[in-house]
Amino acid sequence: MTSHASAEPAPVALRAPAFILVRPQLGENIGAAARAMVNFGLDDLRIVAPRDGWPNERAIAAASRAFDFITPRIFPTLDEAMADLALVYATTGRRREFVKEVLGPRTAISRLEDASRSGIAAGILFGPERAGLETDEIASCQALLTLPVNPEFPSLNLGQIVVILTYEWAQARGRFSLGDVAFPQILASHAELAGLFDHLEAELNESGFFHPPEKTPAMIRNIRASLARPGFTEQEVRTWRGIIKALAHGRGRKNS
Amino acid sequence: MTSHASAEPAPVALRAPAFILVRPQLGENIGAAARAMVNFGLDDLRIVAPRDGWPNERAIAAASRAFDFITPRIFPTLDEAMADLALVYATTGRRREFVKEVLGPRTAISRLEDASRSGIAAGILFGPERAGLETDEIASCQALLTLPVNPEFPSLNLGQIVVILTYEWAQARGRFSLGDVAFPQILASHAELAGLFDHLEAELNESGFFHPPEKTPAMIRNIRASLARPGFTEQEVRTWRGIIKALAHGRGRKNS
Repeated sequence: MTSHASAEPAPVALRAPAFILVRPQLGENIGAAARAMVNFGLDDLRIVAPRDGWPNERAIAAASRAFDFITPRIFPTLDEAMADLALVYATTGRRREFVKEVLGPRTAISRLEDASRSGIAAGILFGPERAGLETDEIASCQALLTLPVNPEFPSLNLGQIVVILTYEWAQARGRFSLGDVAFPQILASHAELAGLFDHLEAELNESGFFHPPEKTPAMIRNIRASLARPGFTEQEVRTWRGIIKALAHGRGRKNS
Repeated sequence: MTSHASAEPAPVALRAPAFILVRPQLGENIGAAARAMVNFGLDDLRIVAPRDGWPNERAIAAASRAFDFITPRIFPTLDEAMADLALVYATTGRRREFVKEVLGPRTAISRLEDASRSGIAAGILFGPERAGLETDEIASCQALLTLPVNPEFPSLNLGQIVVILTYEWAQARGRFSLGDVAFPQILASHAELAGLFDHLEAELNESGFFHPPEKTPAMIRNIRASLARPGFTEQEVRTWRGIIKALAHGRGRKNS
């Protein structure tokens, strides 16, 4: 928003999709899911009938304090866990018996995010580790979500699937973006680099480096290209000028 | 490629980036990394001075047979492990003391993939779980790679970071793509749907459903829109025609 734009209402805090673990077996996977969710800014974790009850010591250990940030809601049945949701995708392997769209993670998350922006409550189901979701559970979802993995080794565990989807969601929403910064403010200017080139060329000329004379322009061009490439900072330019001075006039030269 | 295109050489099998685990502490994380790599079609796992030596029982257990597909190479030093690589990114948290680009995972993987396509051998370094990479190790890399996570809970473990990057790489290269299929071949045609509409409308008309008459066109339009939305298959059209027939002429009606 530009500074002269008229005041607009602050954006509504959009809900993140609910992640629903259905009858999870291993506390480690519940903890890993919670850890991934908090890392990527999701907060709606729901657990249907966890095999080992709740709370679960192994889940807490694997969560690495993620449960300080989110409190999972425990439901006896999947119908109760997804009662408020209008758009739900079911994670599955490459099954083909359903007449539903099979979406990859990027497409699926993009659609869930579009839905969230329209005020639609969305969620993703994750089945139990060994058996996966039951047919009836999948049938009640709007689409299937499948990770595109090696067909010879389709072996992601529940925690790995959750971390990929939480990551994709943070990317889709633009959360915690780094902006791929290149520190332009401290890169040396062209004038500083030109001063470095001039200094180096003068010393090399003095030392008889440029030989034969007809090749000098190409040699200079190559050196300039080489020094331009790294994206030197101001400090590095100063360092390299010190290096040139030392090589040309320093102790090593005096003793030779 | 179209069938009439002239024969072209098969694409060269491009190397995937090397994933280099530097002094990993936990066998579980080594195993999880291997498992993620095989799931997403990477094959170049290198390990520098693993704390607990090699082979490692915990790594093998966590890998879920991934070591049937890839054999990690063990190196005593990082210099040896990355000797053949020309473009190496170092995974780090949000450190700012280096004058290097800090890339998010999508940008970083995109650049590594571009490099691979140019024949440049590329890799990614992952530091030990607790301390991360040392300053000197980071300094010798071309850029930093940081996962964009919640600054209040930056707590991804090594296995989680690896699975995100292997996933991104498979996406960048287009491996194991699902194509987001919608099963168009078995969706009912317009004619089949039109037959269903006509059947339903005729029976509803017979039953006196359309009342008052002036609202009939809008009622028909709404029913048509409702039936068009789900994307019925041919089988579903047959099922619904059976439902209409049963409701209109079946046992329930006869007994009323």
